[in-house]
Amino acid sequence: MHIKFCSSCGARVALKAPDGDTRERSVCIECGVVHYQNPKIVVGCVPERDGKILLCKRAIEPRYGFWTAPAGFMELGEDIAEGAARETLEEACAEVRIGRLFASVDVIYAGQLHLFFTARLLGDYAPGDESLEVRLFDVPEIPWDEMAFSSNSFALKKFIEDAGRDNGVHRRVISDKRSTRAAGSGLPGK
Amino acid sequence: MHIKFCSSCGARVALKAPDGDTRERSVCIECGVVHYQNPKIVVGCVPERDGKILLCKRAIEPRYGFWTAPAGFMELGEDIAEGAARETLEEACAEVRIGRLFASVDVIYAGQLHLFFTARLLGDYAPGDESLEVRLFDVPEIPWDEMAFSSNSFALKKFIEDAGRDNGVHRRVISDKRSTRAAGSGLPGK
Repeated sequence: MHIKFCSSCGARVALKAPDGDTRERSVCIECGVVHYQNPKIVVGCVPERDGKILLCKRAIEPRYGFWTAPAGFMELGEDIAEGAARETLEEACAEVRIGRLFASVDVIYAGQLHLFFTARLLGDYAPGDESLEVRLFDVPEIPWDEMAFSSNSFALKKFIEDAGRDNGVHRRVISDKRSTRAAGSGLPGK
Repeated sequence: MHIKFCSSCGARVALKAPDGDTRERSVCIECGVVHYQNPKIVVGCVPERDGKILLCKRAIEPRYGFWTAPAGFMELGEDIAEGAARETLEEACAEVRIGRLFASVDVIYAGQLHLFFTARLLGDYAPGDESLEVRLFDVPEIPWDEMAFSSNSFALKKFIEDAGRDNGVHRRVISDKRSTRAAGSGLPGK
């Protein structure tokens, strides 16, 4: 969101590089507070039971009516695994035992980092407020053409390829809505 | 930082749970915009060459004069590996080839997620603006009692234990400044 006013004192902000900084930030013209904007963390999981995978059909925008793994913005006061479990409880009314972090997707154009865990579905499930439908899919039935987000599709494919093996964290970078690339070497100045 | 004014229209905000939300947020009393606050991402790496590890002595608060792996807040427009490489260039004037994500530390009390990569130190190094000194340490020389942050110490210990092997991502949760715990199962309702 574009910052126009200082959230600390209510005065106008101006774009400028603070002392010792190379980037322009929103700086308050009255009290001088610097308002940093940083990427946000989305945490989710792939709940699995007997080889089937739990997905949710979205009841909210963006991507109303499309399918997604349970995932959402991480909250203050929780760790990433707790966040993934909480989102699953909210969206699918399902308790899960979170496993290991297996996928990390930078969604640059959205300013988001998506982190996905493996998970065991423990009990029942039902649509939460943000879901139209929640369903266990056999792998060949997964609706790839009706998936809400490419970060989700990437994680789901890697989860299936791993087939229970620990192959570390699969990384992906989605630069804009149309392009995706393998996570690079992270050399500076690229 | 405590939000008092709406960054969109400059009016006062009030704490209340938006419709369909279970948590109190800062909501503008005039335009209704909800100002979410979420954890921030810190990205860093452990630059290694010939079995030696590059650390920086901090020239800024917090923890002025203590040692740290190169790390800092992720910026919009970069992926997590690029962020770790950029921080290393800024703090240690060093180019690195980023390897794999090997440690994830939730620092709950600070509202931060710290992510650490392995890295190869490629060339020279020197103190950046935020460092008093940059030095390559043999493992037995690492100044454990003078490390700036426990997330760093955790990552460094796991890096040394791994000894080049890929053991996936080591996770840790630091709840407050005095307590640390192994990353749990992420069961909801804990």
